[in-house]
Amino acid sequence: MAAEIVNPRTDTDQAAQETFPIDPVFALHRGGKMEVASTVPVRDADDLSLAYTPGVAEVCTAIANKPELVHDYTWKSKVVAVVTDGTAVLGLGDIGPEASLPVMEGKAILFKQFGGVDAVPIALACTEVDEIVETVVRLAPSFGGVNLEDISAPRCFEIEERLKERLDIPVFHDDQHGTAVVTLAALRNACTLTGRPLGGLRAVISGAGAAGVAIARILVEAGIGDVAVTDRKGVVHSGRDDLNPVKRDLASFTNSTGLTGSLEDALAGADVFIGVSGGTVAEEAVASMAQGAFIFAMANPTPEIHPDVAHKYAAVVATGRSDFPNQINNVLAFPGIFAGALQVRASAITEGMKLAAAEALAAVVAGELSADCVIPSPFDARVAPAVTAAVAAAARAEGVARI
Amino acid sequence: MAAEIVNPRTDTDQAAQETFPIDPVFALHRGGKMEVASTVPVRDADDLSLAYTPGVAEVCTAIANKPELVHDYTWKSKVVAVVTDGTAVLGLGDIGPEASLPVMEGKAILFKQFGGVDAVPIALACTEVDEIVETVVRLAPSFGGVNLEDISAPRCFEIEERLKERLDIPVFHDDQHGTAVVTLAALRNACTLTGRPLGGLRAVISGAGAAGVAIARILVEAGIGDVAVTDRKGVVHSGRDDLNPVKRDLASFTNSTGLTGSLEDALAGADVFIGVSGGTVAEEAVASMAQGAFIFAMANPTPEIHPDVAHKYAAVVATGRSDFPNQINNVLAFPGIFAGALQVRASAITEGMKLAAAEALAAVVAGELSADCVIPSPFDARVAPAVTAAVAAAARAEGVARI
Repeated sequence: MAAEIVNPRTDTDQAAQETFPIDPVFALHRGGKMEVASTVPVRDADDLSLAYTPGVAEVCTAIANKPELVHDYTWKSKVVAVVTDGTAVLGLGDIGPEASLPVMEGKAILFKQFGGVDAVPIALACTEVDEIVETVVRLAPSFGGVNLEDISAPRCFEIEERLKERLDIPVFHDDQHGTAVVTLAALRNACTLTGRPLGGLRAVISGAGAAGVAIARILVEAGIGDVAVTDRKGVVHSGRDDLNPVKRDLASFTNSTGLTGSLEDALAGADVFIGVSGGTVAEEAVASMAQGAFIFAMANPTPEIHPDVAHKYAAVVATGRSDFPNQINNVLAFPGIFAGALQVRASAITEGMKLAAAEALAAVVAGELSADCVIPSPFDARVAPAVTAAVAAAARAEGVARI
Repeated sequence: MAAEIVNPRTDTDQAAQETFPIDPVFALHRGGKMEVASTVPVRDADDLSLAYTPGVAEVCTAIANKPELVHDYTWKSKVVAVVTDGTAVLGLGDIGPEASLPVMEGKAILFKQFGGVDAVPIALACTEVDEIVETVVRLAPSFGGVNLEDISAPRCFEIEERLKERLDIPVFHDDQHGTAVVTLAALRNACTLTGRPLGGLRAVISGAGAAGVAIARILVEAGIGDVAVTDRKGVVHSGRDDLNPVKRDLASFTNSTGLTGSLEDALAGADVFIGVSGGTVAEEAVASMAQGAFIFAMANPTPEIHPDVAHKYAAVVATGRSDFPNQINNVLAFPGIFAGALQVRASAITEGMKLAAAEALAAVVAGELSADCVIPSPFDARVAPAVTAAVAAAARAEGVARI
């Protein structure tokens, strides 16, 4: 922490100063990172009579008579609940709902900044699947969508599935699908750049949590040759008797070549490494990969394979970090995905919408591909409009759009 | 509806136009009345590294280690959940959660405009007391306070009581206490204006719902001589065998003179009429009140006693309408009450804080009292600061302030 940086927002708060040296991160977070604002004037009695009583009663009555009007005359279709239970926050793990709030606020302001989507942090004081599902179902009338965030595996899978069944608004676990969409986009461009078909690749995913499972699923949907997923005990395959239901399902649609053994075993001859696990991969195993491999080592802050090592063996290297090229950053996906879904009042975010998001994201840098540019920068202003339009069109094509 | 007013926000939406003629209320409500905004910059990778990863992890870790820091470094202590189940919305009744949203958004923007308090509408898809209580308890980590709104009686009483027991943040049912605070303030000033002590007054409250019960309670706490409450079956008294638990409790601390019979019976010789019921009171009954009476006929849009009639018999007349003098409007209370409570991170809103709010509100117009000015205008800029300061001071005095 940089003790010499004095910020006027904190230097009067003795107690906070004693707790933490003045630090730009804490200075910035003082009082939180977001606020609510009115989009209509409330200056005088006339304004109040339109925005509040008695005028508002007309709008309430209209919605009571024709429920879909809630999308026209409230902020419902503009606002997403960012829901967590604080059990899998960043690399910090189960830190509880209050301590997760800075991340949820961060997510909310990214939704607004990048997608024009309003978002509200909802950190829940419960961790049972049934409780979370029921709570979100009860909240749903107020929101146009639900972004699940930082909920630990395997509960996150069941929670998302059950909410999708119960609700007619988009439910999206970003740790799964946001990561999967951006990974697929980068992989598509790596293939284009090197002239290799996706269908010919054999990929190994290190990590069978939220991100690993979703990446495996989207890669299979996109037609990759084969994908094997590893957890702490090695390759997930149907011969293992220690798999939870999610991993059993994973084993059923991955690893068509029947790999067993360790991550290192699986990497021998593999074309793609995708790391979403933390830990480190020995250089020998990296060296055993096929020539011209793609290495996406996305653990933060320490990639599973350091980019300097990866570049010795790979044609394309990506990480989760902003200080290396090709950052696999969810912010490239979730704002546009929700913006597109909300724009057409989609009842769900389908697999087709996710694939369309990945294609649109990849296409943004199609004309400027290089080994250091297989994915746009998070600040590329072309990204959100492209993803939004593609997702809205896909929602229409898939029959889930309501306008 | 004024069909000739064309608003560019709606005139492209053919479907909406077919449903409703262009109307200024609907035009204003198009897309809702509120949005979320970032209070920190998110322009580049440096900004992102402070407001989001990796910087945010420092703040999360700090809160995990010292939970009270959530108040310093998130928006929790600035933001209130406006919670409803849509069962008692305005005069419209049980219209459901979606149709209640325009009111909840209106409430949220009033919180911001008048108290600088951020507020988020939470309209719940459940009506069972247990379900509402559990849901709000699970939401509580994200919010600095809970404003219950438009939940029907008698469930609203139990919900508020149980939430107050379960939570260490302010819980406040505005339909009860907001109305009660403003009513008491107006009554205090009516007494000051006419030189009558509060302790000498006999009041009759028409309506034993949320507002009636809370007004009775605060008037008794404030030391009024006597207060009788009437419901559809007449005066609430302990001899009745048709009382629910809330009304049985009401009978135990009101009506010390032992009135029975109808509202009209009770009004004979009464000093104060407080109407929170709707319906109308016959002029003969109004004429039977004591000389120099105070008539607060607060039903909206149709006061129980029209002000023209009330003025024939009363010294001070108030209504709930903005187009007559002395509007009893909750917006005079709830923004400042929450702003004051949040300012000192109060763990609750106590009776003393409500009484302090009423005194501060009354004091705003102490120097300019007249029969047409016993309560400030909702747009009087002195109101919210005065109420905020008084509530914060009372919270300290009552030992519920945490800073």
